[in-house]
Amino acid sequence: MKNVKRYASVSRLKPERADYYKHLHANIWPQINDMIKQCNIQNYSIYFYNNILFSYFEYTGDDYDADMKKMAADPETQRWWKECVPCMNPYTEAGPWLDIDEVYHLD
Amino acid sequence: MKNVKRYASVSRLKPERADYYKHLHANIWPQINDMIKQCNIQNYSIYFYNNILFSYFEYTGDDYDADMKKMAADPETQRWWKECVPCMNPYTEAGPWLDIDEVYHLD
Repeated sequence: MKNVKRYASVSRLKPERADYYKHLHANIWPQINDMIKQCNIQNYSIYFYNNILFSYFEYTGDDYDADMKKMAADPETQRWWKECVPCMNPYTEAGPWLDIDEVYHLD
Repeated sequence: MKNVKRYASVSRLKPERADYYKHLHANIWPQINDMIKQCNIQNYSIYFYNNILFSYFEYTGDDYDADMKKMAADPETQRWWKECVPCMNPYTEAGPWLDIDEVYHLD
């Protein structure tokens, strides 16, 4: 069985851009999903409540930083982020998503 | 392969009770995990940020309501909830957790 590392993170949406963000993700470009898979991410979900976004995914590779750099270097992914990121009102200036702490897990 | 339904929900912690809630979940009673498993829940994680709780799990049974009733009827689970629920400041009066909407998923 592959080694799985879970990542959870939070962000917020700008209220006036929330519908567009949801529309984008309900109609995600196939090449974006392909790149996510190529970067060893699986079981990826994003949830929304009260302008808060919550993201959960599982990483099955062995070099997360390298895979994230690969994703960031992909021109289609950059084009996707140019649509999504302006919809967001992040908790931190370090990036659109902020990793959060796991307090409980049961396999 | 089993049919999997994902559930995500949010709650909040009372700031003065957050440490105790985290302590409880870092030391969860084995019989609570056993009952969760018996109720067909897997890959269950709880995350915490800024007094917000986020919960994610996967349900693999075929009668969610019946399994939730079974869990609620378990005396040890009731004892556990008597410790946890007073730490929480729910978004809704309907219960400690509020189910939230998925806006994106990739297997």
